[in-house]
Amino acid sequence: MDKKQGATLFFNNVYVASTSSIAGEKEGEGPFGKYFDSLLKKDELGTKSFELAEIRMHTYAIKHLLFKTKLAPEEVDCLLMGDLLDEIVGSSYSAREFAIPFLGLYNACATFGEALAIGSVFIESGFMQRVICSTSSHFSTAERQFRFPLELGSQRPPLSQWTVTGAGATLLASSGGDIKISCVTIGKVIDFGVTDADDMGAAMAPSARDTLINHLKDTKRKLDYYDMIATGDLGKAGAKMFKLLMQQEGYTLGDNYQDCGAIIFDREDSDVMQGGSGTSCSNIVFNGFLYKKMLEGVYKKILLLPTGALLSKTSTLQKQTIPAVAHAIAIEVK
Amino acid sequence: MDKKQGATLFFNNVYVASTSSIAGEKEGEGPFGKYFDSLLKKDELGTKSFELAEIRMHTYAIKHLLFKTKLAPEEVDCLLMGDLLDEIVGSSYSAREFAIPFLGLYNACATFGEALAIGSVFIESGFMQRVICSTSSHFSTAERQFRFPLELGSQRPPLSQWTVTGAGATLLASSGGDIKISCVTIGKVIDFGVTDADDMGAAMAPSARDTLINHLKDTKRKLDYYDMIATGDLGKAGAKMFKLLMQQEGYTLGDNYQDCGAIIFDREDSDVMQGGSGTSCSNIVFNGFLYKKMLEGVYKKILLLPTGALLSKTSTLQKQTIPAVAHAIAIEVK
Repeated sequence: MDKKQGATLFFNNVYVASTSSIAGEKEGEGPFGKYFDSLLKKDELGTKSFELAEIRMHTYAIKHLLFKTKLAPEEVDCLLMGDLLDEIVGSSYSAREFAIPFLGLYNACATFGEALAIGSVFIESGFMQRVICSTSSHFSTAERQFRFPLELGSQRPPLSQWTVTGAGATLLASSGGDIKISCVTIGKVIDFGVTDADDMGAAMAPSARDTLINHLKDTKRKLDYYDMIATGDLGKAGAKMFKLLMQQEGYTLGDNYQDCGAIIFDREDSDVMQGGSGTSCSNIVFNGFLYKKMLEGVYKKILLLPTGALLSKTSTLQKQTIPAVAHAIAIEVK
Repeated sequence: MDKKQGATLFFNNVYVASTSSIAGEKEGEGPFGKYFDSLLKKDELGTKSFELAEIRMHTYAIKHLLFKTKLAPEEVDCLLMGDLLDEIVGSSYSAREFAIPFLGLYNACATFGEALAIGSVFIESGFMQRVICSTSSHFSTAERQFRFPLELGSQRPPLSQWTVTGAGATLLASSGGDIKISCVTIGKVIDFGVTDADDMGAAMAPSARDTLINHLKDTKRKLDYYDMIATGDLGKAGAKMFKLLMQQEGYTLGDNYQDCGAIIFDREDSDVMQGGSGTSCSNIVFNGFLYKKMLEGVYKKILLLPTGALLSKTSTLQKQTIPAVAHAIAIEVK
């Protein structure tokens, strides 16, 4: 097979060698609680600000991955990192703890997919042997940065989502185990004209559709090729809209489709409205739950489709529409 | 030669096939004014906000590059873009104008180097034939985002720099002309403990030193191998500090060393204090001036060393130190 077809890049030797994850208290109470490597007792982690807490959490995810894999920092060729904080300080401030070359990424909540895509090319091309892809997000940093001060106690609108508190890291390597990234489809920026920053599912669903359809065309695969197709954080309403949008183009998503945001929190938890979101949402669902289920043999072919709403507080205040992007990552047991 | 030595990746077939640049009025009055493809008459570009002006400028840089090279968007495999705006909206909102796969990057003012590094791997590995690397910055968006509202008319401290208004785009391709990227050294995050957000030269100089020394060791090259070593935006004081830091390690930078920030503005312009900074600073000096001088045969071997201060307004207000990163890009006429 060619190396590239359309927007899809194909790989033979990119292994998901190990993963780590850490999550907040609320995430711990959800259905994947027992799969995360660590759970926070308090969202502040003993720091003076939520931003410092997020940095500590992100740093932990990488340190824990190095610990699990018994790798020294100098054995890792590159860190590919991102988060939701302005100027991705959650990543930069974590990266200073490691003497490893650093590339900072930002595709909002699709950043984990972006990191896996770039990391896969680095490994497959033979330029690197081991890279770490990591992202983080924190409810309390995102809420006050993108929306309102926490102290206001603003009422949450019905289409809103709850930013996941967590961080996760993936070790991509040129060998190790039998779980591989077989291909990635890099997304284009799609703007459907949505302006409501509390309805990100609607902003992102069209970009998820564009990337998924490109992926299916490029790979000549059908939807049922995968045991699990998991979008990042469309939320419950966004996932419904995504299904409708796919249906319009003649694709019927079945029981093998889930949205990480829609399933990460306890079903009875009404605070979270449409479910989870954030750069760590699809990350910890994959690194915590899905990867472990692949190791157990429950899933053999997963398509992870992290989705990102590319807005900022300034673009919202200036009443701009919300562009979005999604990247598709095919992970298979070989 | 091996593909990788230390933090340096070596390439045989990565061509800098074309470039475009656009700059502000003040930049137009500087020594490189006549080399930029276009100059703004007004910094607002007829838009309602400086952010929208930056987006229009960034979009123009890519459109102009496509126009110059007669390429259709579908002939470009990927956009690698970044800027200084929160959540890099200068890039995302520009990218929605093009149906091209998009990867958003953030390494502050080192982002242009980061884009060239990742783009080079995409081309050399054979996964892609053509990628566009672009960045933008705008004095008026950066000033109000990182420091104070423009309307305050705050007095500028003596160690401050003036964010460059401009955007530039580079077409990397698997063929075209005789200017190649021969290798890149990816930087680590270095934090020297500087806390003054008005003295970014001091924050970045140690990271420039770390990357340059790694580059020289990995490539076994001497400083005089290059006709021109150009750091991104250390500014006049930062460049002096960088020379001293290099001297401490036994390396004497000579007349072939310049800092893009220190030389981009008119020497008589006292507003700019230590000189230029910003994600477009090293970008437009390269895409506008240096690349054209390479085409003319004036320079044959350039080491571009974009430098980035990885702070945010929040990290500054929380009194955190400023980590920094620098990437080295070797561009040679073959």
